[in-house]
Amino acid sequence: MCGIVGIVGKTNVNQVLYDALTVLQHRGQDAAGIVTYQDDRFFLRKDNGLVKDVFRTRHMRRLVGNVGIGHVRYPTAGSSSSAEAQPFYVNSPYGITLAHNGNLTNTHELAEGLLRSDLRHINTNSDSEVLLNVFAHELQKQGKLVPTQVEIFEAVKAVHKRCKGAYAVIAMVTGYGIVAFRDPHGIRPVCYGKRETEQGTEYMIASESVALSAEGFTLVRDIDPGEAIYIETDGQLYNQQCAENPQLTPCIFEHVYFARPDSIIDKVSVYKARLRMGEKLAEKMMKECPDYDIDVVMPIPDTSRTSAMQMAYRLGVKFREGFIKNRYIGRTFIMPGQSQRKKSVRQKLNPIELEFKGKNVLLVDDSIVRGTTCREIVQMARDAGANKVFFASAAPEVRFPNVYGIDMPAASELIAHNRTVDEIQEAIGADWLIYQNLDDLIECAKEGNASIEQFDCSVFNGEYIAGDITPEYLDKLEKARNESSKRKKNKEFDDDHTVIDLHNND
Amino acid sequence: MCGIVGIVGKTNVNQVLYDALTVLQHRGQDAAGIVTYQDDRFFLRKDNGLVKDVFRTRHMRRLVGNVGIGHVRYPTAGSSSSAEAQPFYVNSPYGITLAHNGNLTNTHELAEGLLRSDLRHINTNSDSEVLLNVFAHELQKQGKLVPTQVEIFEAVKAVHKRCKGAYAVIAMVTGYGIVAFRDPHGIRPVCYGKRETEQGTEYMIASESVALSAEGFTLVRDIDPGEAIYIETDGQLYNQQCAENPQLTPCIFEHVYFARPDSIIDKVSVYKARLRMGEKLAEKMMKECPDYDIDVVMPIPDTSRTSAMQMAYRLGVKFREGFIKNRYIGRTFIMPGQSQRKKSVRQKLNPIELEFKGKNVLLVDDSIVRGTTCREIVQMARDAGANKVFFASAAPEVRFPNVYGIDMPAASELIAHNRTVDEIQEAIGADWLIYQNLDDLIECAKEGNASIEQFDCSVFNGEYIAGDITPEYLDKLEKARNESSKRKKNKEFDDDHTVIDLHNND
Amino acid sequence: MCGIVGIVGKTNVNQVLYDALTVLQHRGQDAAGIVTYQDDRFFLRKDNGLVKDVFRTRHMRRLVGNVGIGHVRYPTAGSSSSAEAQPFYVNSPYGITLAHNGNLTNTHELAEGLLRSDLRHINTNSDSEVLLNVFAHELQKQGKLVPTQVEIFEAVKAVHKRCKGAYAVIAMVTGYGIVAFRDPHGIRPVCYGKRETEQGTEYMIASESVALSAEGFTLVRDIDPGEAIYIETDGQLYNQQCAENPQLTPCIFEHVYFARPDSIIDKVSVYKARLRMGEKLAEKMMKECPDYDIDVVMPIPDTSRTSAMQMAYRLGVKFREGFIKNRYIGRTFIMPGQSQRKKSVRQKLNPIELEFKGKNVLLVDDSIVRGTTCREIVQMARDAGANKVFFASAAPEVRFPNVYGIDMPAASELIAHNRTVDEIQEAIGADWLIYQNLDDLIECAKEGNASIEQFDCSVFNGEYIAGDITPEYLDKLEKARNESSKRKKNKEFDDDHTVIDLHNND
Amino acid sequence: MCGIVGIVGKTNVNQVLYDALTVLQHRGQDAAGIVTYQDDRFFLRKDNGLVKDVFRTRHMRRLVGNVGIGHVRYPTAGSSSSAEAQPFYVNSPYGITLAHNGNLTNTHELAEGLLRSDLRHINTNSDSEVLLNVFAHELQKQGKLVPTQVEIFEAVKAVHKRCKGAYAVIAMVTGYGIVAFRDPHGIRPVCYGKRETEQGTEYMIASESVALSAEGFTLVRDIDPGEAIYIETDGQLYNQQCAENPQLTPCIFEHVYFARPDSIIDKVSVYKARLRMGEKLAEKMMKECPDYDIDVVMPIPDTSRTSAMQMAYRLGVKFREGFIKNRYIGRTFIMPGQSQRKKSVRQKLNPIELEFKGKNVLLVDDSIVRGTTCREIVQMARDAGANKVFFASAAPEVRFPNVYGIDMPAASELIAHNRTVDEIQEAIGADWLIYQNLDDLIECAKEGNASIEQFDCSVFNGEYIAGDITPEYLDKLEKARNESSKRKKNKEFDDDHTVIDLHNND
Repeated sequence: MCGIVGIVGKTNVNQVLYDALTVLQHRGQDAAGIVTYQDDRFFLRKDNGLVKDVFRTRHMRRLVGNVGIGHVRYPTAGSSSSAEAQPFYVNSPYGITLAHNGNLTNTHELAEGLLRSDLRHINTNSDSEVLLNVFAHELQKQGKLVPTQVEIFEAVKAVHKRCKGAYAVIAMVTGYGIVAFRDPHGIRPVCYGKRETEQGTEYMIASESVALSAEGFTLVRDIDPGEAIYIETDGQLYNQQCAENPQLTPCIFEHVYFARPDSIIDKVSVYKARLRMGEKLAEKMMKECPDYDIDVVMPIPDTSRTSAMQMAYRLGVKFREGFIKNRYIGRTFIMPGQSQRKKSVRQKLNPIELEFKGKNVLLVDDSIVRGTTCREIVQMARDAGANKVFFASAAPEVRFPNVYGIDMPAASELIAHNRTVDEIQEAIGADWLIYQNLDDLIECAKEGNASIEQFDCSVFNGEYIAGDITPEYLDKLEKARNESSKRKKNKEFDDDHTVIDLHNND
Repeated sequence: MCGIVGIVGKTNVNQVLYDALTVLQHRGQDAAGIVTYQDDRFFLRKDNGLVKDVFRTRHMRRLVGNVGIGHVRYPTAGSSSSAEAQPFYVNSPYGITLAHNGNLTNTHELAEGLLRSDLRHINTNSDSEVLLNVFAHELQKQGKLVPTQVEIFEAVKAVHKRCKGAYAVIAMVTGYGIVAFRDPHGIRPVCYGKRETEQGTEYMIASESVALSAEGFTLVRDIDPGEAIYIETDGQLYNQQCAENPQLTPCIFEHVYFARPDSIIDKVSVYKARLRMGEKLAEKMMKECPDYDIDVVMPIPDTSRTSAMQMAYRLGVKFREGFIKNRYIGRTFIMPGQSQRKKSVRQKLNPIELEFKGKNVLLVDDSIVRGTTCREIVQMARDAGANKVFFASAAPEVRFPNVYGIDMPAASELIAHNRTVDEIQEAIGADWLIYQNLDDLIECAKEGNASIEQFDCSVFNGEYIAGDITPEYLDKLEKARNESSKRKKNKEFDDDHTVIDLHNND
Repeated sequence: MCGIVGIVGKTNVNQVLYDALTVLQHRGQDAAGIVTYQDDRFFLRKDNGLVKDVFRTRHMRRLVGNVGIGHVRYPTAGSSSSAEAQPFYVNSPYGITLAHNGNLTNTHELAEGLLRSDLRHINTNSDSEVLLNVFAHELQKQGKLVPTQVEIFEAVKAVHKRCKGAYAVIAMVTGYGIVAFRDPHGIRPVCYGKRETEQGTEYMIASESVALSAEGFTLVRDIDPGEAIYIETDGQLYNQQCAENPQLTPCIFEHVYFARPDSIIDKVSVYKARLRMGEKLAEKMMKECPDYDIDVVMPIPDTSRTSAMQMAYRLGVKFREGFIKNRYIGRTFIMPGQSQRKKSVRQKLNPIELEFKGKNVLLVDDSIVRGTTCREIVQMARDAGANKVFFASAAPEVRFPNVYGIDMPAASELIAHNRTVDEIQEAIGADWLIYQNLDDLIECAKEGNASIEQFDCSVFNGEYIAGDITPEYLDKLEKARNESSKRKKNKEFDDDHTVIDLHNND
Repeated sequence: MCGIVGIVGKTNVNQVLYDALTVLQHRGQDAAGIVTYQDDRFFLRKDNGLVKDVFRTRHMRRLVGNVGIGHVRYPTAGSSSSAEAQPFYVNSPYGITLAHNGNLTNTHELAEGLLRSDLRHINTNSDSEVLLNVFAHELQKQGKLVPTQVEIFEAVKAVHKRCKGAYAVIAMVTGYGIVAFRDPHGIRPVCYGKRETEQGTEYMIASESVALSAEGFTLVRDIDPGEAIYIETDGQLYNQQCAENPQLTPCIFEHVYFARPDSIIDKVSVYKARLRMGEKLAEKMMKECPDYDIDVVMPIPDTSRTSAMQMAYRLGVKFREGFIKNRYIGRTFIMPGQSQRKKSVRQKLNPIELEFKGKNVLLVDDSIVRGTTCREIVQMARDAGANKVFFASAAPEVRFPNVYGIDMPAASELIAHNRTVDEIQEAIGADWLIYQNLDDLIECAKEGNASIEQFDCSVFNGEYIAGDITPEYLDKLEKARNESSKRKKNKEFDDDHTVIDLHNND
């Protein structure tokens, strides 16, 4: 997952971009980047690390200009390299930089085509570099000395025709303006808002509305699936539907886990959706297990707090914070002669024993992916003296890989893959396990915006909304993710995992 | 406030010290340090920054040895320098390093004495350097070639006689062992525990029990006020009461704000104490304002969550998380030609508007210090559409400066200083304001351990438990804190605030 | 001035490129860069600093591949930015990187054209970025999926037609090979050589032959003016004359000052040329001042050592090293409240007084540019007790700015600008001053290779060999250099003069 | 070898200390440190690296005060750690810092004594830490609240009694002044000078006079063997002979190799001494080999240039610079799967072939230690086409280890150890080899100051002037140096060879 932001302002935008990226940091902690332009020159800074570590005073001083875009990156599983900080850049035409959230599912074919049709060199495994070159190529083909919204929108149309998958994109055309567009299914979120200043109206485009509100911008609306918005340096805004059959089918996992609760995505309040998840889960519980004997409901902090709270409320059971999250995370060092210690969830969570001792506790998490953390937590609850440990997942069983930009493990690593709920319950060691129904989850999200007819629920039901996902594709993905996972393990304790690539020297 | 830890183990202790400091990081994020010894050499690494930033693989590799101590530092207000990372070191006698939590109130007199009696040079403004030199001098006076528990305890006795104030201390005598002691009033917490391994029993001493439990150590007990514990390299443990009239009067603010809820301090569960604070506050509310019309109770995350939850429960009002905390914090840069932007609480908290719209909300915080944050939060609630905004403080009015190691502003900057509750209510803009009663607060803490006859409540009642706090002392402190506060403002945006001092870093 | 190198090897070339850049470091100490490719990916590392500081183990590990190019940069005066480390990169066509030594004199016009004809964005003031884009554009126009020597040479031909000025270039076409070419006047040097290994023949192209010999390559020959050499990944070498009227008129200043004495440029040994300069100067001296009364001849270390030695020999006067060069150079820091100290030549040179006391000394330098250093040195000689101080310059009067890549001050800052030799003698405070005759200098260089009919001697005679240098151009240059010089002064003491640009570093 | 400097000035001395250390950098490139004091606080910065890398603006800003000392370090062979940057510090009495050049030969016994008599902990293997503690202890014993020259000189007297070996020392007593002293044999050099300013007289003490002259100080005189000089903060200077039987027997190797030619040590001009070495060597040659057939004399740059030049002059043979020294030195990286490449002298020197071709060349070096470099150079000369290669060493055969602070290999690694001149000649592959006679060398040095009756020539004759060097000591040294040499090899390519020790965190 990634976070993207773009601003056309009236004064230097570097600080606001920085602040907005900080607010979006939950969408990606691996790398950060900002690019701005002034006159015909752009200024770029990107590197691996948190926003606060990537940008120092000396960088900010040089990121001048009233227009800019930014990016925070969480490595998309399956992408083989963890090195590709964004925005990416091409110098022809015009000098274009691009920040992307999502994942293309025909990257390989596109890259081949780019080489043949335009001799464009792709230097990384990043689908974002490919996406940028497709866009750049389509814009270049039109050959205008000064690009207007007409050419920009034509290029976006062509992108929609050539690219498959999920993409929310903000791109900057040096000297002219920024364009934002969203794939024809609107899988990944992106919205825009405005702020009035003495110098005139400023626009911000961002992955989540919380970036807008935190910086004093008012949400105007989400960008429609397939739509493009182009804002010129002087603040003139154009928009156009660029897809042929756009249909809003946003990723439901944003509501389950990714998005901040204080965001509103496609008119749905994430917070409210989560409250409803708690509500529905409570109802399912009361139906399936009417004589539940629960002393206390506890969230696994932080994401599940909202639904757990409401679940407790609805069940009429006491709500307590039985696990304290360690806010500061350290590392495990390998000393000469030592073998690597297993990372434990105990470094992240600490139980308050007295809340467990002799009680029947219901632990609520947002979802269960690999299940390893889950099993450890159940054990911690028992070690802390719990009588019985029940477990509830606010989302249904995660059974399929994600191909639209979420960094999830390969199918074979998912605990729900080829397992029944009973088998999962046994695997995690819980006395009882309850999952949300998928229909209920959809209803929770939909209730906020009835006009959404469908969601991308592929990790739950294996239906890939944007089509064209073949078994071969998934096979390749499985292999890539397994390899990536291995590589990660090896690199985990490498201090200097600097990467040399196109735009990143250290 | 600071966090301290010491371990006498059976294998290298660097990783466990690192992990323990990470768990104690909430007690100080400004600097971190670890020192270990092997044979007769010690190995030291300390610097400004978080634990995860201060220690890299290359440092850890050199921090060898089965014995070591560590420190995380939060600058004690009034200390004029922010540069003094701990542990501190003196080479005679034996090579002693020391980590300290607390504050001496007769630093100046001690420093003078040290110079005169022992020609010891004090190079910083840190009371910890002074404390170390007092201890070292007293140990040196006994002139033993090999120090035993007898000499160590004699030295601690002398420290108790010469030093005034609050101090929980862990010191390491290179090649021999570590000693921990606590001032005769036991103001700052320190406890110890043990862990059985195949090689034998390992001991850990730490500021809070959570460091023990997180690392698999079992809490044995708190160190008594005035007591000293000496553990030799081979694990032999000695203890002795070294004060003449020890009396346990621990700092109550640990329960209000500082300590982690999952810690147990002087046999009192911090978590339970906070639950009781919520309970008591609810009772006071029901008594003083029986027809309260509250729609929802909200904590100001994270500290007040426990008490707010219980308060809501007791009041029978819905509990909701109306503010989302930004977990990632950035900086405000000063660009050439710009003036400094005011830091806003909005960078830290974001309201979920729908929880406020048209409702009467009760906001609960652990305490109110300067009141500026409080005022902003009240305003945010109103901006989010709240009908009425009530405010509850789980602690009484903070009216006096702290002299025992808590970094609080000067008296004149405290909102409750020379103000009635009504005036404070007006100042923060709340529709109604309620403070915990001091007696209630004390009861909340005491209930966990009836044997504690008294707490240090000086920030609430101005009674400085360890005595000798003159108006002149407070005057000097006021000036120092005002200056320190100014200096901080100036330095806030200085990238490279490296400091050159005794134990030169960077 | 810059140094360039390229290698097509049989195993990883990173270490050899690194070593070669170290040998060429005298041509540029401001920045360094290396790019290699393996399969279809290239790997780039560049930054400000010396070679030894720019490349660390973590970078070298990633610079894999059997083909690569490198660059060391000395800022060309008149270029307004000191930030543009090379190689530069464009992604279309093919992904091309380029390293350049020299200076284009029609950069502005070219940049305009690039924008219009190909919509290529130029993000810096570097003429090298422009040169790369011209080359890339011309290669792209031919539209071949796989470029061969035919397309490469066509592109070089077009470059020769469009670009004016001096350029020795090594460019890498990712996945295919490296091309090197030299402007039609051959102003800047570039040569190539080969090395036999068990895996086959390896080629190196470099600014100076010393890079070849130091790495065990045998000099094959210089690249002819206008010629291009293309070496494919597998070692196949092609060459072709790509200019219409090539004529070798190399820069004579390489022999005077820039090149290492152990280099052979266009078949002329720099060392021998310098010996001859000493010889000629001695002869002129004997003619003009037959009864010279010189006790000792001294070089200003290091460049003039060769000619001074020979001059002394020819004059029959004792040769002595009266000035000791400080090999380690520090900085002058500005402390708060201090004004900047003037930099003094005394930080660089130290006289051995007894060699001066009561003697008539003849100081020999390679050339006199601003004259400030010269004046200080004369004064140092007097302070050290010299009776009379004579001064000899192995090169003629430097009266005109350089437009072909040498970082020289604006005309107005040249001491010989609008001054007679007598006036210069007075300005530097010497008792007597002698300059080399230009004809003699030319003869010194030519003697090594009679086939060179002409040299670029523009700094001495104002004749710009590549034509098209208008008074307007020189005016603009003068302004740019004055500004650049001012800016430099301001930046001189800025620790963190990191620059954010296209290929973002740090 | 190390370089030391101390200044008592009238304004901040940090810049002058920095500049002086840069001038003394040839005496040590491994580490650098500066400590200053203002009021009663001292400020320290030290780290591994060159002066220009260790001190940045942020450090210099904090190194305030009118008094300070500095140090550059070259690791003394036999010292097992390469980590101990100076100055060292002890806090009692007074806070003393110390910078030392030389080597104690009874370190182990002293360390034992310190522990027993004063319980002082020594944390490193550095003899300098021991020396500091001896001095500190002796000063402390006198128990004065304010130390005067009386106590200082008493302490130096005691140091002379307890310490054996070579030591030139500058120490700073925080708040009071700086003291400099030299061992009773005056083995290592140290001198002082003064500079008049408007605010009064400033004093500088330094290892070599060149540091004084470069900074505008006038050499007053060398410190006598056994003498101490104490300069108080206000500039009051005291001196006293503190040894019982002082005798000047300075290290002759300073003249051969270490010292800068522009220094004057014990009234002997190093430059002149080297001229005389060339002279003597020429005379020996003419006597031993009257019909020498030499075409050209060449120095091995840079040290031997002075003597080689004079030798050529005396022999009446042409003098030429046949080897060009690479001023920029890089590293050899180990790539995965590669084994370490042998370091070659070819990375340091490059021959100018035409000076060798068909000629009989005489190569002159200052001395021959291991002989490996020598052998490679001879081979290079042959490869470059030399007809015959003669070799001359301006110093006699180096046959014994140094115990007085010079980092020389173990005896077994010295090429002249147990070899005759003929054997050495064969080992290095020269056609003829000539060494300076020891008597001649002594005469060369002595001629500058007839009052020096004896020099320490131990590396040539094995007579250790300060006595007490037992075969056991030399055995231990041999082992230590062999180990150190191994360890160095292993560390050579370690990027982050940061060391954690007492005062140095990184």
